[in-house]
Amino acid sequence: MAEKGVTPRSEDYSRWYTDVVQKAELADYSPVKGCMVIRPYGYALWENIQAALDRRFKETGHVNAYFPLFIPLSFLQKEAEHVEGFSPQLAVVTVGGGEKLEEPLVVRPTSETIIGHMYSQWVRSYRDLPLLINQWSNVVRWEMRTRLFLRTTEFLWQEGHTAHATRAEAEEETRRMLGVYADFAINDAAIPVIQGKKSNREKFAGALYSTTIEAMMGNGWALQSGTSHFLGQNFARAFDIKFLNQNNEMEYAWTTSWGLSTRMVGAIIMAHGDDQGLVLPPKLAPIQVVIVPIWRKDAEKTAVLGLTDQAAQALKAAGVRVKVDDREEVSAGFKFNDWEMRGAPLRIEIGPRDVVQNAVVFARRDTPGKEGRTFGHPAPRVANAVKEMLATIQADMLGRATAFRDANTHSVANYDQFKEALDGVGGFLRVHWAGSDEDEDRIKDETKATIRCYPFDAQGEEGVCFYTGRRTNQVAIFARAY
Amino acid sequence: MAEKGVTPRSEDYSRWYTDVVQKAELADYSPVKGCMVIRPYGYALWENIQAALDRRFKETGHVNAYFPLFIPLSFLQKEAEHVEGFSPQLAVVTVGGGEKLEEPLVVRPTSETIIGHMYSQWVRSYRDLPLLINQWSNVVRWEMRTRLFLRTTEFLWQEGHTAHATRAEAEEETRRMLGVYADFAINDAAIPVIQGKKSNREKFAGALYSTTIEAMMGNGWALQSGTSHFLGQNFARAFDIKFLNQNNEMEYAWTTSWGLSTRMVGAIIMAHGDDQGLVLPPKLAPIQVVIVPIWRKDAEKTAVLGLTDQAAQALKAAGVRVKVDDREEVSAGFKFNDWEMRGAPLRIEIGPRDVVQNAVVFARRDTPGKEGRTFGHPAPRVANAVKEMLATIQADMLGRATAFRDANTHSVANYDQFKEALDGVGGFLRVHWAGSDEDEDRIKDETKATIRCYPFDAQGEEGVCFYTGRRTNQVAIFARAY
Repeated sequence: MAEKGVTPRSEDYSRWYTDVVQKAELADYSPVKGCMVIRPYGYALWENIQAALDRRFKETGHVNAYFPLFIPLSFLQKEAEHVEGFSPQLAVVTVGGGEKLEEPLVVRPTSETIIGHMYSQWVRSYRDLPLLINQWSNVVRWEMRTRLFLRTTEFLWQEGHTAHATRAEAEEETRRMLGVYADFAINDAAIPVIQGKKSNREKFAGALYSTTIEAMMGNGWALQSGTSHFLGQNFARAFDIKFLNQNNEMEYAWTTSWGLSTRMVGAIIMAHGDDQGLVLPPKLAPIQVVIVPIWRKDAEKTAVLGLTDQAAQALKAAGVRVKVDDREEVSAGFKFNDWEMRGAPLRIEIGPRDVVQNAVVFARRDTPGKEGRTFGHPAPRVANAVKEMLATIQADMLGRATAFRDANTHSVANYDQFKEALDGVGGFLRVHWAGSDEDEDRIKDETKATIRCYPFDAQGEEGVCFYTGRRTNQVAIFARAY
Repeated sequence: MAEKGVTPRSEDYSRWYTDVVQKAELADYSPVKGCMVIRPYGYALWENIQAALDRRFKETGHVNAYFPLFIPLSFLQKEAEHVEGFSPQLAVVTVGGGEKLEEPLVVRPTSETIIGHMYSQWVRSYRDLPLLINQWSNVVRWEMRTRLFLRTTEFLWQEGHTAHATRAEAEEETRRMLGVYADFAINDAAIPVIQGKKSNREKFAGALYSTTIEAMMGNGWALQSGTSHFLGQNFARAFDIKFLNQNNEMEYAWTTSWGLSTRMVGAIIMAHGDDQGLVLPPKLAPIQVVIVPIWRKDAEKTAVLGLTDQAAQALKAAGVRVKVDDREEVSAGFKFNDWEMRGAPLRIEIGPRDVVQNAVVFARRDTPGKEGRTFGHPAPRVANAVKEMLATIQADMLGRATAFRDANTHSVANYDQFKEALDGVGGFLRVHWAGSDEDEDRIKDETKATIRCYPFDAQGEEGVCFYTGRRTNQVAIFARAY
């Protein structure tokens, strides 16, 4: 129950975030360092994210499977860059069934290696390709500094792993799945992500290149919200995924991997939340509509609850996720605050006057105060009115987030302006870039900003690099990031 | 692809099982000892099991959440019987992020302890009860001898954990959830399980008592297919789950836990499979209907594929999970064998003669040979005919399994008959029982049979114990079990 409000965003954005996660009962700290407990309300949000993605994966021809949690340490060592990237983050099982293991087992930080091994068993001929498999699972990456949903030692995710006969097909898959993530983020999470390529410094350990969807949070920082990697033949060589092609020659397969995690819950909180708490996009909200019946005298109660029940039934029948909050031990005002904290997109109030008019009151979560309250929605047509309103809220949330992102995206002409902008207006800095990997390191050290991506929508625009002064047609988005 | 058949059941039941799992591509061995890979076809079956259970859990008021994979070793030690039961089976993480951990972390073998700890944080008053939470997750129990699906070091499952204000309510929940498992097993998996109480020797480590659903496999052995435990106040005391009751007194909560795992896939294979492979109940089959178009001349192809497509569309629209097998590199006979191996409940054949008649051929998987093939199902009404046929197959499978179970359940008058029956006809031995725990141990040592359960449907029947000769009203089912 949300007895007290949250720290205002303007006062301490980081505390605001933690307050919202805990007071909306999305997640809780656990007694295991770095690991979180995802509470039922947070998990219901994750289930809706899962359903929205899983449907898209299946529509694009993918199937689910499950691979072991444990990976022999030697497997990780087969791809040099991969083991270098993940070694510092491993949790290692050394004892099993009371005995010291001959070879330590790593708790998967990601599954390219074990899946690569299995693919090498399953693939013989070009007829066995493509292999289009996704896994829903937990993974573990040891973290020093953790933050609920954003960075935890254990997290839940999906990881897609595909193998193809040609480079072109694998690159196409890499982009297709990034597109699936973007479609989900934009249309379901109402987050206007930017699709682009990662810099060398930020790519996945073992990939030829990585692509990403980058979201802007309410404080102007970036959050990498999903990634899709083109692995070339790196893992195919390391794990011997070979096939006989149509010309009867043995070839290494081309592979991809792509993942989106419970981090997305953090993205939704920070992209939309306000000082009253969570604001959830209707398509993903566990409870889309909360109905609060209001009465003073016992004589009013029956009629108010009657209309409430009628409205709830109509909404359920129309497929709306609705909850009636008929608690008697707390006030209506308390309930309003409580459901605002939890981000339910639409509140319906039903009081004695509404019964007389056979109508109900709507209050939009995304539009606080009087402006978001509308009266006299006829009870017999409540389901249609709610569905329209939810669609409007969904669209308005995306519109608002897009306007915010655009208003907080700036271009700068030189490094001084770059630093000034970062410390002042913040947000995304969209610039021409011709610097080296070392230049990028230096900028990160000096400003904490990194290249979030080379956006796909900017390819070909020519201009002058703000850092080196060189002419280039490469555009980069820099930002501070979680 | 099922190029070769499986070992006949009569020849080697154990090899038959492994053959079916691998040739139907349900699962594969992994390079990690004791861990399996669940392949897409097996995982799709698991997804259908999950959906069928999850719906029932939600209908009975439960919500899903997620708790950490790792559990501090000290947590397990808080409940004496619990740690004793699970200690020999633990996988232990001793290194994290490159450093030796101060306290080792156990990979969860089950989550009573960590969930108990969280419940102690969340529960304050009787108003916070009941807590009705379920988790879908992986768990790890180190096993020496493993068998795909039936016993693996890592497996997937759901574990429900509930806390209640009274003993009566918790016991009611224990039975309710066993009932949910039985309803699922009988009506969706077509397995006529027997509900009952576990003996002391077989109960969950830390429970006051355990209840179980026991299924009979095709060789007469038993398979424990789901369990529901009444934990009393054991874990509440160990983890300090206390609440203020309505009289303003502090009390320990009463808890339950219940779980069903990927083992259920093994139950389905062994309850229904035959020498041609898997036989899947329609309600859970990933592919309920496979359509095999058959033609010789190119001139026939268009018409045959046209009718095939029309039938497939009609079935999809009716919500049937249908697949068209239009591979050209293999023969129709090969496809028949292949889909029999994979247990698709219904095959539809469409050839040039069927096009002329505008009708199709049905072939039931559960009724091999001519008897299961029926002709002239009019194409325009194919969806209804298929739905009726699937319902018939589902009912017939349950009927056949029930008849098999009943035919293989015997009663014996003394221990000699008991041993004779076990080595002869096998199956379930339903007997009166007044022996001690030590008697049960002795019987297990001598015959490998254990008490599977004290069936609930037998309560009160008086008789003579086959082992001790004492009069008793306790009935037990003994069997050899997986």
